[in-house]
Amino acid sequence: MLEPSKEDVAPNHVDQKLIPGQSSRFKNQIEFILEVDKLKHVLRQTILMDRSRRENSAEHSWHIALLVPVLAEYSKDTDIDMLRVMKILVIHDLVEIDAGDTYCYDDQGREDQARREEIAADRIFGLLPADQATEFRALWDEFEERDTAESRFANALDRVQPFLHNYFTDGQTWQENNINSRQVHDRMRPVKDGAPDLWDYVNTLIEDAVKKGILAE
Amino acid sequence: MLEPSKEDVAPNHVDQKLIPGQSSRFKNQIEFILEVDKLKHVLRQTILMDRSRRENSAEHSWHIALLVPVLAEYSKDTDIDMLRVMKILVIHDLVEIDAGDTYCYDDQGREDQARREEIAADRIFGLLPADQATEFRALWDEFEERDTAESRFANALDRVQPFLHNYFTDGQTWQENNINSRQVHDRMRPVKDGAPDLWDYVNTLIEDAVKKGILAE
Repeated sequence: MLEPSKEDVAPNHVDQKLIPGQSSRFKNQIEFILEVDKLKHVLRQTILMDRSRRENSAEHSWHIALLVPVLAEYSKDTDIDMLRVMKILVIHDLVEIDAGDTYCYDDQGREDQARREEIAADRIFGLLPADQATEFRALWDEFEERDTAESRFANALDRVQPFLHNYFTDGQTWQENNINSRQVHDRMRPVKDGAPDLWDYVNTLIEDAVKKGILAE
Repeated sequence: MLEPSKEDVAPNHVDQKLIPGQSSRFKNQIEFILEVDKLKHVLRQTILMDRSRRENSAEHSWHIALLVPVLAEYSKDTDIDMLRVMKILVIHDLVEIDAGDTYCYDDQGREDQARREEIAADRIFGLLPADQATEFRALWDEFEERDTAESRFANALDRVQPFLHNYFTDGQTWQENNINSRQVHDRMRPVKDGAPDLWDYVNTLIEDAVKKGILAE
C-alpha cells in the first residue's frame, strides 16, 4: 500500500496558514472531515425501500444511528452508554472508504476483509490527532469484537436495518444473490446477543419470507 | 393536509400479526424506521467533495453526527450532553421528508418553511409511540430554537459542514446561486454562538474565498 499523502490530494488541500493559530491538531481534524465524505460513494448491496437504487454506507450509518433513540428499550443490557453506541455507529463503516463494502454473504471477499480493514483503519483514523485516532480506533475495535454491551447493541442495529430493507422490498437482494434462510438466520445472530426482542421479530419475518417465497428455505 | 395513512402505503406495510406480542408500540417504531428511509431521497444544494453530485439529507445528517466526536472540544460550552447533541443531529432534518430541503438563501422558500416543517413534524414524529413522538419533537424544537448549549453546538456543526463543502469545492454552489460573502457570513452566525473557534476559521475562509474570487464580495 502506498504511503498516504495528506498534502497533495485535490480538492481537499487544507492550507495550514488559514487555520487559527496554525494548529496542526485543527488542521488534521479538518482533513479527516473532508476525507470521510468519501463514505457517501461506498455502495452496499442493500437497496432503498422504494427500490430505486442501492444504499450507500453514509446513509446506512445515519439510519442505524437514528435507530438508537428509536429502539433503545430493546437493548439486552439497558444500562449502557448510548453516546458510545452512537459514536460506534457513525464510525463503524469508515474503513470501507479504502476497503470497500464486503457483502456479508461473500465468503471469498470476507477472507481477507479483516486484513484490508485493518490497513484502512490505520490510514483513516490516522488522519486524526493521535488521541482521537486512538479513541476512534478503540471504538471501531469495540464494534468488531462485540465484547461489550454497547457494541452488542450496536451490532444488533447494524444487522436489523438491512434485514428490514430486504424483507420489506420482497427479498429482492436475497434473490439476486441466491441467499437462503439459514444464511440470513446465521447472519442475524448478533441481534440475539444485543436485542433479543428484535431477534424474535427477525425470526418471525424470516419464516414469513420463506412462506411467501421471497427467501429460499 | 390529508390524514396520514399508516396502513396502506406499499411496500412499508407492517403486518401487526407478525409483531412480537402484536405490540402497537413496536409496530409504530418499525413503521417509523421504514418511513425515514425517504430522507435519503431529499437532495440538498450542497455538492459532495468530489463534485460528482448533490448531497442528500441522510448523508448530511450522518456527516454532522460524526462531527460531534471530532469537534467536541470546540463547543462553546464544553459541559454539555453530547448524546443529546447526536440525537438532535440525526433527527433534525426528518421534517424535510415532507417539507423538502429549503435552500438557506432562498428567502421566498423560507417564508413558509416554518409552517411546512411544523406540519411535517406532526406527521413524521407522530408515527412513533406517543412518548417517543413527544421526545423527538422536543429535540427538533430544541434544535430550531437554539436556546440550549446542546442545540447551539448542534446548529454550529450543521452550518460548518456545508460551508466546508462549499469552500473546498471552490465555491461552486455559491457561484451557481449568486451568493455573496455577506450572506454567507450572516448564515454562519450560529457557529459563533456554538463554537467560537470554528467561527474564526469560517471567517478566515470567507475572506480567503473572496480573495480567490470563488465568492462574491
